[in-house]
Amino acid sequence: MKLTELGQFGMIEMIAAMIEKTRDGQAESWRNVIMGAGDDCAVWKGDSNNQYAKVDCQVEGIHFNLDLISWEDLGWKALAVNLSDIAAMGGIPSYALVSLGLPPDVEVHNVVALYNGLLRLATLSGMAVVGGNLSRSPVIFVDVNVIGKAANSDGKYLSRYRAEAGDLIAVTGWLGSAAAGLEILRQQADAEAKASCLRQAFARPEPRLKEGRLLVEKGVKAGIDISDGLLADLGHICQASRVSALIHLNQLPIHPETLSRFGARSAEFALSGGEDYQLLFTAKSDIVTEVRNNSVYPITVIGEITSLKEKGIQVLDQEGREYQPAATGWDHFKTR
Amino acid sequence: MKLTELGQFGMIEMIAAMIEKTRDGQAESWRNVIMGAGDDCAVWKGDSNNQYAKVDCQVEGIHFNLDLISWEDLGWKALAVNLSDIAAMGGIPSYALVSLGLPPDVEVHNVVALYNGLLRLATLSGMAVVGGNLSRSPVIFVDVNVIGKAANSDGKYLSRYRAEAGDLIAVTGWLGSAAAGLEILRQQADAEAKASCLRQAFARPEPRLKEGRLLVEKGVKAGIDISDGLLADLGHICQASRVSALIHLNQLPIHPETLSRFGARSAEFALSGGEDYQLLFTAKSDIVTEVRNNSVYPITVIGEITSLKEKGIQVLDQEGREYQPAATGWDHFKTR
Repeated sequence: MKLTELGQFGMIEMIAAMIEKTRDGQAESWRNVIMGAGDDCAVWKGDSNNQYAKVDCQVEGIHFNLDLISWEDLGWKALAVNLSDIAAMGGIPSYALVSLGLPPDVEVHNVVALYNGLLRLATLSGMAVVGGNLSRSPVIFVDVNVIGKAANSDGKYLSRYRAEAGDLIAVTGWLGSAAAGLEILRQQADAEAKASCLRQAFARPEPRLKEGRLLVEKGVKAGIDISDGLLADLGHICQASRVSALIHLNQLPIHPETLSRFGARSAEFALSGGEDYQLLFTAKSDIVTEVRNNSVYPITVIGEITSLKEKGIQVLDQEGREYQPAATGWDHFKTR
Repeated sequence: MKLTELGQFGMIEMIAAMIEKTRDGQAESWRNVIMGAGDDCAVWKGDSNNQYAKVDCQVEGIHFNLDLISWEDLGWKALAVNLSDIAAMGGIPSYALVSLGLPPDVEVHNVVALYNGLLRLATLSGMAVVGGNLSRSPVIFVDVNVIGKAANSDGKYLSRYRAEAGDLIAVTGWLGSAAAGLEILRQQADAEAKASCLRQAFARPEPRLKEGRLLVEKGVKAGIDISDGLLADLGHICQASRVSALIHLNQLPIHPETLSRFGARSAEFALSGGEDYQLLFTAKSDIVTEVRNNSVYPITVIGEITSLKEKGIQVLDQEGREYQPAATGWDHFKTR
């Protein structure tokens, strides 16, 4: 069987099962593991606080296209996607290691620009870039590894395994802005497109680190970052927590510029666009209110968690009718 | 300027200087950094022991060729090259994250074989694989991140910055075996080649973790792993420590099979072959003796560290005449 047939998530499940078989209660490393492959980050017990680690890779032609974003954007984004996973645990990022694959004819000033973007976000996030690797490769790739830690020693973190029926579903910021930004860049590479805040949402996503920590502080237990699209990532929560979900289409927070430019398509961007790197979380109503009251960044309730007896994720339109989304996220290997 | 002109090491130096400029004494992460980019591993202060981290990447057609090694070898080797760097600090490996780039037509059983090789070495090394990433990519790559720690809380580790004039230079195991193994595989892919222990040295290198810890325990301060070739890696030590070195050709530990198969070429394999993943260290004579007396694995003295006034690395033959090596290691980007 080829990867195209099994798909990305099928392969990941198979690998996770192989790793699980090597779990060794005698080994000190394994005794400290709290969460291995399967959540946004790996979690293990440190001497005081829990430690987090995450790796994510950007491959040319698959994840990015240098006709649409700059080398500096690429550096920023390659780190941002990892920090978003640290945010989705409610953690603090500490160290990064950067592995670059580069064709030999790449201009040195482009590598410098990439590092400028990456180091800018690292500095803004209080991180130290402590190492890396530089490999020759026929295709450009940027693989970033981030090591972080919990803000406190109480062992609390956000997990995709802890959503419960009766929880409200809420998100930070806007949904679909990155997809709208990408569409604008595809249609027109002019100055107006470059100035759009939607382009910014796509090319320079801001990991919601502060909001992730606030969620943990206020007692939220279930969360994930929206990288594959709202439906796909909410699907990960539902699968891991063995619950279903109801989404109200007219409650989705969509940026006015997205609505004015794309009208009815905006809903699809918000549901399946991906790359927004906002946080999705679920919690009882009083906790969500407490979070909203303490966040300067917008938090919007978009639906509720229902019991497993319901049918997966249902999206309801303004009249309460079931809405059928065109797409549900994306798989790297399966043909779309 | 293109990467081919600047070369791998020139680019790495430039990046290291950029990172250094972002060092921020106010940030907790930076305050804990003991060694950033520039040694075998990053080192930072943990709550008790020092922590180590390293990333290294294997790219198809650049670092490996699946006509010569199996998918299982590839998985083993991708982890082994990182563990070798942990060994070169005298550390203990704890956690690994594995980032794979795979074309969609790869067979699932090959990905399983890769993980079998990798997980076998992880288990033998007492490690937990805690996460990873799976990306579509036109070229196969395996990027492994390893996080480890010091065996003790005394803060001691091996560094390429601490060689001193008057130190002896010693290595673990055999030199040139991996290069000889690669040459055998290139010449003949038959059963005899597969059975050769030299092939094993190339395809399944064994990181010298135990020996690395022994070195630290016995007071050795300067060390590196031999990945780029003896001359290149000794060159890194000389440059970092601002010293020169003298190597005695007839003292190089070359495996009898390498000698019998390759005769005079063996010396070149040992000096410049690369990928042996043995440890090179320097220390005063009494410490080297103490290490040799306590190691079941062979340790061989091959030369001595001299002062910076001498001319870089000199290789002397049996008659004490200067020997001119054909090559001095390799740079990923510069044309060889």
